[in-house]
Amino acid sequence: MAKVEQEAEVRYANADGLADALRGADALFVWDFLSTAVPDAWHAADRLRWLHIASAGVDPVLFPELRSSDVVLTNSRGVFDTPIAEYVLGVILAFAKDLMRSYDLQREKRWQHRETERLGGKRALVVGTGPIGRAIATTLRAAGMEVSGAGRSYRANDAHFGTVYPTDELSEHVGSADYVIAIAPLTEQTSGMFDRHVFRAMKNGARFINVGRGELAVTGDLIEALDTGQLGGAALDVFDNEPLPADSPLWTMPHVLVSPHMSGDVVGWRDSLVEIFVDNFTRWAAGEPLRNVVDKDLGYVPTGTSRV
Amino acid sequence: MAKVEQEAEVRYANADGLADALRGADALFVWDFLSTAVPDAWHAADRLRWLHIASAGVDPVLFPELRSSDVVLTNSRGVFDTPIAEYVLGVILAFAKDLMRSYDLQREKRWQHRETERLGGKRALVVGTGPIGRAIATTLRAAGMEVSGAGRSYRANDAHFGTVYPTDELSEHVGSADYVIAIAPLTEQTSGMFDRHVFRAMKNGARFINVGRGELAVTGDLIEALDTGQLGGAALDVFDNEPLPADSPLWTMPHVLVSPHMSGDVVGWRDSLVEIFVDNFTRWAAGEPLRNVVDKDLGYVPTGTSRV
Repeated sequence: MAKVEQEAEVRYANADGLADALRGADALFVWDFLSTAVPDAWHAADRLRWLHIASAGVDPVLFPELRSSDVVLTNSRGVFDTPIAEYVLGVILAFAKDLMRSYDLQREKRWQHRETERLGGKRALVVGTGPIGRAIATTLRAAGMEVSGAGRSYRANDAHFGTVYPTDELSEHVGSADYVIAIAPLTEQTSGMFDRHVFRAMKNGARFINVGRGELAVTGDLIEALDTGQLGGAALDVFDNEPLPADSPLWTMPHVLVSPHMSGDVVGWRDSLVEIFVDNFTRWAAGEPLRNVVDKDLGYVPTGTSRV
Repeated sequence: MAKVEQEAEVRYANADGLADALRGADALFVWDFLSTAVPDAWHAADRLRWLHIASAGVDPVLFPELRSSDVVLTNSRGVFDTPIAEYVLGVILAFAKDLMRSYDLQREKRWQHRETERLGGKRALVVGTGPIGRAIATTLRAAGMEVSGAGRSYRANDAHFGTVYPTDELSEHVGSADYVIAIAPLTEQTSGMFDRHVFRAMKNGARFINVGRGELAVTGDLIEALDTGQLGGAALDVFDNEPLPADSPLWTMPHVLVSPHMSGDVVGWRDSLVEIFVDNFTRWAAGEPLRNVVDKDLGYVPTGTSRV
């Protein structure tokens, strides 16, 4: 942050001090993106023009006052693409190669040969066609899977997905996938999109991977689909309530892999997040257009616009 | 086997009945490739001309009497290539994304964020340049890793590996690899090639993956390298003593993933193995050249010769 500190007065604040720090500030860099401190302190934002967030998803700061304001919102698009794609491939292979069962048997010192599954030729549907979804598609296809996508509207011959199905017809297209990956931005349109109806339309035994936002799925419906065996497994890195409460059945359900919202957080990620902010700060100080400007009505950076 | 049964008298035998069945037989299809029944019954092989084995490695049947005989030996090259490559990528990602630790924490219902590793840009050295090693190289490179190989002799510009280093200089070239994968055939030259000297030459914290044969490594030296932290982890699918005895420290060492010689055994593998034999039987019955003929002096099917 040395470069920023040279050119601006920088105030560092936690949730308690945010309102004081925000008073008179031109720009706000939100580091703890899940914090609710920003809407709480918003009344003090008397001259804010730019808000940058250290995450790809911007749902936590899309409260009504920000949406209706003139404050420009930018995100950290790009940092998480490849790491999350690698993570998704890792959990898919953990399912296909039965690694968790091997680990269980190892604890019991049991030598029990099993047949595992091929990855090549298996089908993945990536729900969310932003840069992370595209990195996932590229990675899974390179590993031999057949990949399609789901996004706002139908597209043929997409460079990464081939076919993109409209998410409002998800239950009509989800049935051929062996793995369904949730990486859509959380918006009014996508909240709860994975519900009982969609889970029931999935192939019996399909696996569900959520690396987007917990609220994309209706948690009760997800648990029911796992419980009945309609879903063959789930790898969940995000939850509608984080940290996942100790009384959640997801912790102990068979064929469920729980991780603590870390799929994109590789060594060096904090540096990368700061670099993106500093780069945008340099543009902002020079009066140049910012990168990764979020369309506050859509709830994400539209495809085809600025990328990191 | 129906096709074979139409054209030949087929005798099915277990270890006890093998000598009787072998008497007068022209061809032998060895299904349980780790069995020692073949050398034990060899005295009864009075007119054997062809032995086919349901595995890629032929070390279990390369006893002196077979080597010096005129019996043609063929293997099941091809069946295991992609499955083992997928398995290797899976265990590498399990290490990089700390999946086993996530699974441990999940059992304790602990939400503990960690930073994980990138896969992209990491270096893999694949020791063994046969078809399985080549499939591993292709798969790891497609996932963003930098890959080189080690084989009998130095080669530049290899289609799959780029550079192939000579295995007898392994300790000079192993030091830059983050992951070292053992998939060489087990021969007099390769037996015990991963010894204390080679493990000490590896990068501190490198991970060792053995999907070849347990005897490629000196088990005591491997355990020592894991114990001292010289190796950061190991994924072991093969052992010099299988099933792995209950008193082996490998079962319980941290950062060690034990699996029961199953890395290549995907659903349908038994059918694939029978198909290869039936295909070769058809050639044999027609007097045509067989596929996958093993060079009994080298101990494997030389590169560039017949492939499945």
